[in-house]
Amino acid sequence: MTDRSFKIGVVAPGSRMEQEIAEKVMRLAASLHGDRALEIHFHPQCFLSSGHFAGEDTIRCDAFVEVANDPRFDAVWFARGGYGSARIIERALPKLTGKAREKTYLGYSDLGSILGALYAENFPKLAHGPMPADILREDGERAVARALAYLIDGDHTTLEATISNKTKSAAFNITILSHLIGTPYQPDLTDHVLMLEDVSEHMYRIDRSLFHITSAPGIRKVAGIMLGRCSDILENEPDFVQTEEQIAKHWCEASGIPYLGRADIGHDADNKIVPFGRLLSV
Amino acid sequence: MTDRSFKIGVVAPGSRMEQEIAEKVMRLAASLHGDRALEIHFHPQCFLSSGHFAGEDTIRCDAFVEVANDPRFDAVWFARGGYGSARIIERALPKLTGKAREKTYLGYSDLGSILGALYAENFPKLAHGPMPADILREDGERAVARALAYLIDGDHTTLEATISNKTKSAAFNITILSHLIGTPYQPDLTDHVLMLEDVSEHMYRIDRSLFHITSAPGIRKVAGIMLGRCSDILENEPDFVQTEEQIAKHWCEASGIPYLGRADIGHDADNKIVPFGRLLSV
Repeated sequence: MTDRSFKIGVVAPGSRMEQEIAEKVMRLAASLHGDRALEIHFHPQCFLSSGHFAGEDTIRCDAFVEVANDPRFDAVWFARGGYGSARIIERALPKLTGKAREKTYLGYSDLGSILGALYAENFPKLAHGPMPADILREDGERAVARALAYLIDGDHTTLEATISNKTKSAAFNITILSHLIGTPYQPDLTDHVLMLEDVSEHMYRIDRSLFHITSAPGIRKVAGIMLGRCSDILENEPDFVQTEEQIAKHWCEASGIPYLGRADIGHDADNKIVPFGRLLSV
Repeated sequence: MTDRSFKIGVVAPGSRMEQEIAEKVMRLAASLHGDRALEIHFHPQCFLSSGHFAGEDTIRCDAFVEVANDPRFDAVWFARGGYGSARIIERALPKLTGKAREKTYLGYSDLGSILGALYAENFPKLAHGPMPADILREDGERAVARALAYLIDGDHTTLEATISNKTKSAAFNITILSHLIGTPYQPDLTDHVLMLEDVSEHMYRIDRSLFHITSAPGIRKVAGIMLGRCSDILENEPDFVQTEEQIAKHWCEASGIPYLGRADIGHDADNKIVPFGRLLSV
């Protein structure tokens, strides 16, 4: 915290967010940090709707660039996942200024497209973790409180338990990382512990995505893979037989990547924070 | 045709095939080419079952390598799609001999994983087109008859209508090509007309896969993209609004790749043959 207020800008590069979420998050923030100078600005773009998305590509792109470049904001907090972040990357990246590099970015799921692209551009303060829309989950206030504690205070109790300043880390949704492989937005994850999670996929899709990810030469340079939670798995016909951990171990073994166990991340209220790169201090 | 019989070996690197398919295909082949010396050998592996797959990885790999390397076979015809081809690539490629390079390979859908990998290894006679299991489709005998006419006689009336010896071509399932991007199995498609089709995907997934494919620097070197049929689209919530052709045009425009119209390929009986590379003669 500085002597001025801490300002968080919220934008929705993917799917739209309901007004109810903003209200709940503001109430929670006031109850937790009411004595602090804290401002959370939900950009009006969050509530727009255009088909699948929270407004058309140009509008989502402009809102993201505006908040990222605005020196008044200390952090960019992504509103929710869904799908759509990938559609604005190529247009947004050239518009980001030095001011955009200074702030913290927090999100996960679909937002891995943007986090990955920013990490490929060496943005220093990126993190995989809860978003405002998580407040609608069962016990979701815990997730949002964790995100706020990380954004405002960099609270290390919010971090995935294995994270230390001894190694670099990164975290992604499996399907989203798969769709960055081989593009200019695939970040260099050499020597990183790569934590992976997924939701609402068939087991065969998780297997195929892990084939893809672990076959990429750049990914074979990671320090190891940790598997987060794979929740809400869709029924496989015929049954895939293997569990997500058996699948992850299979592809780690096939690719020569160390399998390092389970990571405490996923599409749920327990989703811990994973800062990208090496922790500056612990 | 040579003076000896034309021999086709069938293997199933993905999902298993029912015996009924083999019987129907043999009957159709006999009725169409009964006066010719033609042998179709369904490798017993086609009928094995191991969870999602037609036998375990090692068994599917061994069967594919055995038929590919066997000098008695003129062509390798893939039995059916599903999922599983990707799982045997890395193990199979180093085992393929010069004999494997001489024969024709035909398949599509999940088999794009192997066709792409073989094309990356400069195998000269690869084609995207119907498989034995297509005989179970409505009007499926037409598709299988087309495949046989291509395999046995190289019949040019079986080809996608825009194919000529003036340009190189390749065809893939959108989702399958997406999962090859950035791996050693992504083929060089520079100056190719790239035909793309898909089946049983949500529109947002098709959009995301086309983001991925058209963002890859190697793919930006294609001569253009033609869109095949995208059938059995799953319901999008909310409605995606855009059609598959609008999506394809969007990504072509965003990536600077010429959009060249519709291609006569897809998961249906009309699925025409697309040989990879340049036609040797027309």
